Amino acid sequence: MERELPKYISEIDGALWVTEIDRGNLRLGYKIKEIIVVEETPFQHLMVLDLVDFGHALFLDGVLQSSDKCGHIYNEMIVHIPMHSHPDPRRVLIIGGGDCGAAREALKYPNATIDMVEIDEAVPRNSQLHLPKVSGGPDFDPRLKFMFIDGFAHIKKSQGEYDVIIIDSSDPIGPAVMLFTEDFYGSVKKALHPDGIMVCMSESPLLYAEELKSMRAKLGALFSIVQTYWFATSDYPGGMFSVTLASDTYKALGRDAAFDKPTRYICKGVLASCTELPPFVEEMLK
Amino acid sequence: MERELPKYISEIDGALWVTEIDRGNLRLGYKIKEIIVVEETPFQHLMVLDLVDFGHALFLDGVLQSSDKCGHIYNEMIVHIPMHSHPDPRRVLIIGGGDCGAAREALKYPNATIDMVEIDEAVPRNSQLHLPKVSGGPDFDPRLKFMFIDGFAHIKKSQGEYDVIIIDSSDPIGPAVMLFTEDFYGSVKKALHPDGIMVCMSESPLLYAEELKSMRAKLGALFSIVQTYWFATSDYPGGMFSVTLASDTYKALGRDAAFDKPTRYICKGVLASCTELPPFVEEMLK
Repeated sequence: MERELPKYISEIDGALWVTEIDRGNLRLGYKIKEIIVVEETPFQHLMVLDLVDFGHALFLDGVLQSSDKCGHIYNEMIVHIPMHSHPDPRRVLIIGGGDCGAAREALKYPNATIDMVEIDEAVPRNSQLHLPKVSGGPDFDPRLKFMFIDGFAHIKKSQGEYDVIIIDSSDPIGPAVMLFTEDFYGSVKKALHPDGIMVCMSESPLLYAEELKSMRAKLGALFSIVQTYWFATSDYPGGMFSVTLASDTYKALGRDAAFDKPTRYICKGVLASCTELPPFVEEMLK
Repeated sequence: MERELPKYISEIDGALWVTEIDRGNLRLGYKIKEIIVVEETPFQHLMVLDLVDFGHALFLDGVLQSSDKCGHIYNEMIVHIPMHSHPDPRRVLIIGGGDCGAAREALKYPNATIDMVEIDEAVPRNSQLHLPKVSGGPDFDPRLKFMFIDGFAHIKKSQGEYDVIIIDSSDPIGPAVMLFTEDFYGSVKKALHPDGIMVCMSESPLLYAEELKSMRAKLGALFSIVQTYWFATSDYPGGMFSVTLASDTYKALGRDAAFDKPTRYICKGVLASCTELPPFVEEMLK
């Protein structure tokens, strides 16, 4: 008896597998324990799958976004480096961040109020329900405001109001493509308070060096400080992944700065060393 | 016209792909530019492939061992942490290490002479010819002695003679399975000088936490110091990968120790932070 399988899922030797194809050059197949949700949203194809190796995992258009195993790594790194490096982050904007993990981390700063602008309400809805280890579940502090609108449009309307802007987007394909343009970064700068900090997901330096160089050049034309920092994760191809920070005022704080938030990936060593890129990565980015 | 494809290689949409299956739960597919070597050795199936994303890459029994892109990361980490932490590493033994990258790094210590015991001569032969970016090519310093014999047998014969022993094995399946036993570690201890240091490849803490715990327990029964350190690589599943050091005398040197070897992954930050495991990894290893 043949069964109809959702897009991206196939049966191999009696088990179900989801296959992510990365730029046509890598195929990453994960064995599935259970299909939790499959939803065709107005913006993208969404799945929550229970994977043998990664636990519950969110896929958008067939690409793994966040999992029980590693979701906290990315979310801690994209949030705490800028929040910790700003002396008093009160107004925070997250663009994207649909797995809600970034919002969860940002709420660890008691003076912060957070606007989370995510175009597709289906992503936080499913993440809150089915990815509680990453999202923290359905109940959020009222300091977090969800706005299900276009991030770029929201940024264009904002003027000097945010201390920290976190661009927690998916890859530069599909709904997120505009979030990697000079035009967008210019609007982010305008939306930031003059001493504000922005960060954006900047892919794996091992697999996407050209894209990262191009992003750093665009940000370098706008901000006096541009810093790429790295971490290890298994949620994304490349093993080594990166976030890029830009500001006119604050650099990422390193070794000697006290850090008091409860975190699972960030430790003193990570904080001290993440902004120092290995020499061969520096070389690739020249 | 159908062509016969080597084991592990298949044609998908007109391109050739090699697929590595990790413990039956992950499928890692790499798009191939060119098949360089396919050889059935007396011990294993060996391929050197030119991959779109990773350049030249060595596969044993269908598992990626080392590539132009990331081979140096693993080799630097498995060699320099113990060699740098020993005050005067003169007698060095490498078990396995067929890509020759570990030997290449160890030769950066001018007082060291290196025995490299690799059961399968086909691995160094092909790595020296076809993986020069990792191996350094065919010409080696005479301080390096190749021995194409069984590593376990060699270890059993050795007594208190090595300052540093590097177990640079493949996964605990196939020819390397014996290199993960208590019996083997006991023989390694006996082969070490009393103040010597051993290290062994200890897999991804994210995907193989149980195996790593078991290895640490076995080493902990033999040595007073057991330290697992980590790095990011794309050559192996898990993104975060580890090596475990054991000694009765020396801990891994961290932050403030001067390090003067030319390296491409190791930098001050890596050296300072690699022995500090992220809290969630510590938790997994409890």
